[in-house]
Amino acid sequence: MQFDFSKLDARQRYKLLGSTITPRPIAWVSTLGADGKPNAAPFSFFNVFGEDPPIVAFAILHRSESDAKDTGNNVRLREEFVVNLVSEDNLHQMNISSIEFAADRSEFVEAGLTPLPSVTIATPRIAQSHVCFECKLTQIVKLGDLRSLVLGEVLMMHVRDEAVIDAQRCWIDTPSLRLVGRMEGNSYVRTSDILELPRIPLESWVSPEPLRGT
Amino acid sequence: MQFDFSKLDARQRYKLLGSTITPRPIAWVSTLGADGKPNAAPFSFFNVFGEDPPIVAFAILHRSESDAKDTGNNVRLREEFVVNLVSEDNLHQMNISSIEFAADRSEFVEAGLTPLPSVTIATPRIAQSHVCFECKLTQIVKLGDLRSLVLGEVLMMHVRDEAVIDAQRCWIDTPSLRLVGRMEGNSYVRTSDILELPRIPLESWVSPEPLRGT
Repeated sequence: MQFDFSKLDARQRYKLLGSTITPRPIAWVSTLGADGKPNAAPFSFFNVFGEDPPIVAFAILHRSESDAKDTGNNVRLREEFVVNLVSEDNLHQMNISSIEFAADRSEFVEAGLTPLPSVTIATPRIAQSHVCFECKLTQIVKLGDLRSLVLGEVLMMHVRDEAVIDAQRCWIDTPSLRLVGRMEGNSYVRTSDILELPRIPLESWVSPEPLRGT
Repeated sequence: MQFDFSKLDARQRYKLLGSTITPRPIAWVSTLGADGKPNAAPFSFFNVFGEDPPIVAFAILHRSESDAKDTGNNVRLREEFVVNLVSEDNLHQMNISSIEFAADRSEFVEAGLTPLPSVTIATPRIAQSHVCFECKLTQIVKLGDLRSLVLGEVLMMHVRDEAVIDAQRCWIDTPSLRLVGRMEGNSYVRTSDILELPRIPLESWVSPEPLRGT
């Protein structure tokens, strides 16, 4: 079946894209408001995009052309943010922080989140998160009237001690983090049903195509 | 535990980012070479970033400053590509297509992929994929010497008939697609272990903070 995107409205396109481009990693972004209050909100239009420099990016849906939501407004103001990752044990708090509270209410208070000071930036990270990335804003790419892609460079990473197998080798015990991904609608996926698929070295690959001349 | 990214090399940063920012959706990108041969390669630094316009993006790691790999070179040349999604039943073929074949060999032949004509662009989609997005290139954002972020607008979507519950309502049976996400190392995650978490309406939320004046 085909869906011609030029004949669909934005909501229809969102449904089709959001219910198929899955599982998505979740950035639980903390920012600092003009009033000094910390803010937190989840974004699943998010991923890592590079290591040199180390870049993460997430897309914000604005409320209007002049209001880029609390996170968007704060990122523009402070030029920094923290990406906190979401695990099974903080998923409920993440969900509370996705409520559209008025700007003068902090999701840290509403969801019972504990702010921890960051090392390289003023924005606090979320103590309940097992992995946090302190980021400085590098670029905002305007995607449409109501969408912006926020790119940030990772300055500092925090990982819960128990999840670090070998710090020298940068070896993390990923399964122990019990990270959660975003699926369609109200669905999330646990990262429990794992399969291993080693890469195939080129030199061991036997091509199905007969070599020319044989 | 803290990792100061300014004191790590690119490979160490890649390990830390790639083993924690999970699960990642997989774009199995097909492109058309200058010689007219179709090419396919998987990318997990990928996501959807908007609906109006409908934007997807993936990051390419170049071989060198002058060689953006087959996919990168083809996207620059043709200004179009197809994002095919990866499910359990085509994961092995996706893995074959990730072998670093010479540019004159097509992953379609090596992995036994069937090219199907697209509607709006010249690049074929992969018949074995259950969800395919025909895209035109909109922008390439240079992230570093060896990384580029490729942004494309979705023109047309193809979904296997059986996975469409209600085409009018754009309602897709996501679980039936058995999509696979990228984890750390050689690990992938099935989208089988699902939990439902309804959003909390603002009006039903009881704040833990006492109202001022009470």
